[in-house]
Amino acid sequence: MRRPTIADIARTAGVSKGAVSYALNGRPGVSAATRERILAIAEELGWAPSSAARALSDGRAGAIGLIVGRPADVLGVEPYFMRLVSGIQRELAGGPTALALQVAPDLADEMAMYRRWAAERRVDGVLLLDLRVADPRVELLAGLRLPAVVVGGRAGAGHLPCAWSDDAAAVGEAVRYLAALGHRRVARVAGPADLAHTAARSAAFEATARELGLDGGETVHADYTGEDGARLTRRLLAAVPRPTAVIYDNDLMAVAGLGVAQEMGVAVPEELSVVGWDDSALCRLVRPALTAVSRDVVEHGSRAARMLLAAVDGETVPDWCTPAATLRPRGSTGPLRRG
Amino acid sequence: MRRPTIADIARTAGVSKGAVSYALNGRPGVSAATRERILAIAEELGWAPSSAARALSDGRAGAIGLIVGRPADVLGVEPYFMRLVSGIQRELAGGPTALALQVAPDLADEMAMYRRWAAERRVDGVLLLDLRVADPRVELLAGLRLPAVVVGGRAGAGHLPCAWSDDAAAVGEAVRYLAALGHRRVARVAGPADLAHTAARSAAFEATARELGLDGGETVHADYTGEDGARLTRRLLAAVPRPTAVIYDNDLMAVAGLGVAQEMGVAVPEELSVVGWDDSALCRLVRPALTAVSRDVVEHGSRAARMLLAAVDGETVPDWCTPAATLRPRGSTGPLRRG
Repeated sequence: MRRPTIADIARTAGVSKGAVSYALNGRPGVSAATRERILAIAEELGWAPSSAARALSDGRAGAIGLIVGRPADVLGVEPYFMRLVSGIQRELAGGPTALALQVAPDLADEMAMYRRWAAERRVDGVLLLDLRVADPRVELLAGLRLPAVVVGGRAGAGHLPCAWSDDAAAVGEAVRYLAALGHRRVARVAGPADLAHTAARSAAFEATARELGLDGGETVHADYTGEDGARLTRRLLAAVPRPTAVIYDNDLMAVAGLGVAQEMGVAVPEELSVVGWDDSALCRLVRPALTAVSRDVVEHGSRAARMLLAAVDGETVPDWCTPAATLRPRGSTGPLRRG
Repeated sequence: MRRPTIADIARTAGVSKGAVSYALNGRPGVSAATRERILAIAEELGWAPSSAARALSDGRAGAIGLIVGRPADVLGVEPYFMRLVSGIQRELAGGPTALALQVAPDLADEMAMYRRWAAERRVDGVLLLDLRVADPRVELLAGLRLPAVVVGGRAGAGHLPCAWSDDAAAVGEAVRYLAALGHRRVARVAGPADLAHTAARSAAFEATARELGLDGGETVHADYTGEDGARLTRRLLAAVPRPTAVIYDNDLMAVAGLGVAQEMGVAVPEELSVVGWDDSALCRLVRPALTAVSRDVVEHGSRAARMLLAAVDGETVPDWCTPAATLRPRGSTGPLRRG
């Protein structure tokens, strides 16, 4: 089953490995007759240049890296990641570059993986997800001289190019829509507080709630899992008075929140409006279908990969902002029913 | 930003690239003093052996490949794949092997990718998903001498080792449970007919329905998307008489089917029992929560990766069957209400 090596060709041809290398690479150093004979033997043995050999010759690893720092359980049901990966693959398809995907249980592990990738030259660059406030990865990657593109937000990206989306505008649009429907007590089940894009959304949420003079505008933080979304929705709906509308930071928590409302006998949308985020197919499968902030995650991944390939080529890559996320109203939101 | 190469070290040290190579690899051919000087310069320039160089020396690409032959849109919302990838990553974590993930729009593209991977030695082996009846990939991989492990079913795997699950037993268990609840008209929204594991489930479904003397036992085929699951559920529920129970081949179609029942005013579980498959977190988020055939997809992926690493090492790898899938009854199934 072992594939033939240059040593095998050399042994069969009765020449040195150096001679085989000259012949295969079309370089001087062997006679025309020997070259012919070596090439014939290489052909016969089924030899092909390995990616390793090509990487040595052009200095490329032929891969870009993506480390996902969320638990395996979240990955399995969070549409965002696979849509992002789909987009990255769409850009890489047919080209010489593969995607090396890794899951890291925590930030320390993720940092160690970048160090190893750089030391072993396993990847030519990386895509950076879930930027934290004062993220230590930005400085690490600069030190490792590993090209990188940040996916998701500009805050804290330092000198790194970003494929970002204007989350603040989208949050404002959702809150204004709910206020126009008559809602005054709007809550938000957000992602982890230490993520930069969570902070950007929270600031926009609070600013818009203040501007519109809404009562409260509470934000609670969850870990993006359905379980956590359900737990925090139960807490919000148990409060007196309870919110009449809830905005979720991803689809999965919104679906979970809808389930909790049904379980607690709170009618959606008559007594509670629910707004999701990302707008994967999940939003259209549940009943009532979920109103959601919609953005093209597949295109976002594709564009980020293209930016990274350009950065690997040594180009100066400007930031890129995805077309603005838009609110897609469906059955889960409606006018406040005055009790 | 370019990383130092052996040529850079040679130029700085004023020696040949061959001398640098001897020094870095600890081989004779340079004096002790020159070796010291070369190593000091390599250290100073921040040189590190690349994965390419190491791959050349040990003949390994340092990656295993996984090609997913479903549309990007399906990937984004189908929990199965990311749970499988999570399991593979769990096995590879901390080791020297990365996962190269590709999406192929169709079988011809997938076959071309295997040929390219083999020719360029980009991967040391592959995991094969969604085995078809008389699958041409099995013969192709044998011809390419690329180690492979089949994930999902034994039928048609030829000489390839399989990480499989006993789908037939799980289908039988679900049908018997529904029959015990009084259901006589049980339908099934299955995956694509040309997949080997769909065929195995269909045969078991029909055999059990016959054995129990159920009326009908219709199977319709969908593409695993929520949209297709919804469309076929509408068709099944519009029939006269309509089925009183439906078994779906994945979670996503079951969630979509539940939504269609709500949209058509068919009460679940009073008028219709719904059974999902795979039992991702989705099943527990919707209301009523979905009864599902549960299997440990993460562990399945992890085990398949371990088998492939052993096969790459030249070991003879026996088939491995995951612990039997079990039925998890929840709120979406109940006794047939006699009208």
